[in-house]
Amino acid sequence: MFAPVYLDHNATTPLDPAVRAAMLPWLDGLCGNASSRHEYGRRARQAIDEARQRVAAALGAHPTEVLFTSGGSEANNLFVKGAAASLRPGVVAVSAIEHPCVLKPAAQLVRQGWTLREIAVDGAGRIDDADFAAVLQLKPKLVSVMLANNETGVVQDVAALAAAARAAGAWTHSDAVQVFGKLPIDFRTLNAAGLHALTVSAHKINGPKGAAALLVDKRIELQPQIAGGGHERGLRSGTENVPTIVGFGVAAELAAQRVAQTAARLAALKDSLERGLTELGASIFAVDARRLPNTSYFAIAGIDGETLVGKLDREGFAVASGAACSSANPEPSHVLRAMGVAPEIARGAVRVSLGNDNGDADVEQFINALRVTVGRLQGLTAVTA
Amino acid sequence: MFAPVYLDHNATTPLDPAVRAAMLPWLDGLCGNASSRHEYGRRARQAIDEARQRVAAALGAHPTEVLFTSGGSEANNLFVKGAAASLRPGVVAVSAIEHPCVLKPAAQLVRQGWTLREIAVDGAGRIDDADFAAVLQLKPKLVSVMLANNETGVVQDVAALAAAARAAGAWTHSDAVQVFGKLPIDFRTLNAAGLHALTVSAHKINGPKGAAALLVDKRIELQPQIAGGGHERGLRSGTENVPTIVGFGVAAELAAQRVAQTAARLAALKDSLERGLTELGASIFAVDARRLPNTSYFAIAGIDGETLVGKLDREGFAVASGAACSSANPEPSHVLRAMGVAPEIARGAVRVSLGNDNGDADVEQFINALRVTVGRLQGLTAVTA
Ligand SMILES: Cc1ncc(COP(=O)(O)O)c(C=O)c1O
Ligand SMILES: Cc1ncc(COP(=O)(O)O)c(C=O)c1O
Repeated sequence: MFAPVYLDHNATTPLDPAVRAAMLPWLDGLCGNASSRHEYGRRARQAIDEARQRVAAALGAHPTEVLFTSGGSEANNLFVKGAAASLRPGVVAVSAIEHPCVLKPAAQLVRQGWTLREIAVDGAGRIDDADFAAVLQLKPKLVSVMLANNETGVVQDVAALAAAARAAGAWTHSDAVQVFGKLPIDFRTLNAAGLHALTVSAHKINGPKGAAALLVDKRIELQPQIAGGGHERGLRSGTENVPTIVGFGVAAELAAQRVAQTAARLAALKDSLERGLTELGASIFAVDARRLPNTSYFAIAGIDGETLVGKLDREGFAVASGAACSSANPEPSHVLRAMGVAPEIARGAVRVSLGNDNGDADVEQFINALRVTVGRLQGLTAVTA
Repeated sequence: MFAPVYLDHNATTPLDPAVRAAMLPWLDGLCGNASSRHEYGRRARQAIDEARQRVAAALGAHPTEVLFTSGGSEANNLFVKGAAASLRPGVVAVSAIEHPCVLKPAAQLVRQGWTLREIAVDGAGRIDDADFAAVLQLKPKLVSVMLANNETGVVQDVAALAAAARAAGAWTHSDAVQVFGKLPIDFRTLNAAGLHALTVSAHKINGPKGAAALLVDKRIELQPQIAGGGHERGLRSGTENVPTIVGFGVAAELAAQRVAQTAARLAALKDSLERGLTELGASIFAVDARRLPNTSYFAIAGIDGETLVGKLDREGFAVASGAACSSANPEPSHVLRAMGVAPEIARGAVRVSLGNDNGDADVEQFINALRVTVGRLQGLTAVTA
């Protein structure tokens, strides 16, 4: 079967064989309902407890701080809307570059009397300090700033931002979906600094789709968004998805064990990738900011991103244009817009996101394919111009 | 390994080997993000499209009427809160015997200005016609009555109830989680009668945990409860859980193919079970109502349900006391309370729910074990009395 080189790990990642092996027994024979008070139920409950301990340990959290959800989008919605429902309406402040699963629930609060304030970023995709200070003057009740952006890879100084926001009276949250497994995360430290809650997701760390977690300081009161049987301390009801939760536990443990090595290896690969990109005349977005070790987001003057992604796909390279997570929507990236990138440049955006399974050969082949493809597209442009 | 006889299929069901086989390829190698515009993404998208067609066909719905969610609880919350958010507050009417994942979101609406009205049932667990008529006088905007109850197995005449409710101006929903695979369901017919939306869930039909669907008439406007990237026509965001959705598709197809045969076979098994129960002096709840072919809910005078379930568990029989789905909560069943069953009798409630994997021997062994266990418990009571 045709197996393109996969360079789109910020969209999703392959399941680690050890994760798969841990899940398989739960897909064979009977996987009980963890609420059942019999042998099958108890086995399922125990598996979930163990997974919760693994996820907590991998992130420096306490197991009782881990709320399992079906995905990162659900976890982000749970924080934004679940916290808001425990408060009287006020200002909710989220960065302008958040994933839609933070931006949209925040916008939904407006109907309930909240005021949505987007926090500006600078040209390199970093939170604009002056605007952040202005936002805090508004005494926001909820503040969410992502730990790293899925498109640019830009890492924010969330400890400092959360400290300031909490001092101003806010409940604070950070979407760490893109950071887990790529840089170390310690919830204990972030929490001590001022962060109340953090989102992570299994399928971005070589775990299964269908499991994620909101880590949350117990002093924060959340209203369940999926109400019912009272699972997850009453904050997220529904029969637990045992196989994916088990897989998440193992994936989290592996991600934490490997993160230092992964980060160093991917950073070196990315440097070599970006040398190649620069030689081909690409401009790399947010190049001056601190970025994830695996993400390169770039544009080549005069070349449409969608078109380039399509051509590379046919050449056997899987990369993304704009944000893959929400590419039902073909508008130019809201992240680049927030960074002040002109629409005609933003339309050229292509993202390469490396992962565990990539090596030097992948980068080399990709750069070669890109050179040829870009050459052809530029030739075409020259002819039709 | 100790493998008790499983008689708790209303809590969850074993994965069908054919479902497992369909899922495995998606847990091996790379399962793409269905939103990605490359080979891996397209393959994932196609698998989801096929699963949607299968689920739709199995239930007599159109694929565009199928919204995938992570579970039955999420689908029920999506209808109740998603529909309410499209309407001005009014009366929301749900039967008193609904699963908590309908009752609790309905109760959450009260804070937003809605009035919650529970619809009474009679002593056999059937909707009380007079009370239903009284409810319709209130011109409820939302009405939800489950197709069959998870504890008693009582089947409601949802077509007639929905017709009346819709005629009174309501948007109507039915939780069919316990019916799919046990009795035929045709959404086309129910929809023509007056039903707008219906919930089904994969893990109750020998499919995987982590996939379910809300079938919904497109004339109903829902607000997303998980907002974000715009998946599922903007009504449920989050990277699709491809393996479980694929498994759900296959499980739905098999459930529909087998339903007539399953219903007949389970009904015969249940009759033989209930003859045995009656001989042991058990009273069967809702015995006069139309019930699912697989569910027997009973109590034996003077014997505590929890205790009996615990003893049977040690003897190698997995059954439930009260509602397994929500047994984090050890209060006597709200379903029996609604039926007017006295608390001291309700505390004796034990549920046996049969499934595809059960045969005559299971029922025979269960009745024998029950006879011995009940004998011992009654002896104990006699001594301590
Ligand atoms: C930064 C970020 N947050 C949240 C999500 C949402 O996660 P999911 O689609 O798994 O729900 C994604 C990607 O999909 C993401 O990149
Ligand atoms: C009638 C009914 N509705 C809804 C649910 C909720 O489904 P889930 O726990 O899979 O979310 C259940 C059982 O759990 C049920 O029995």
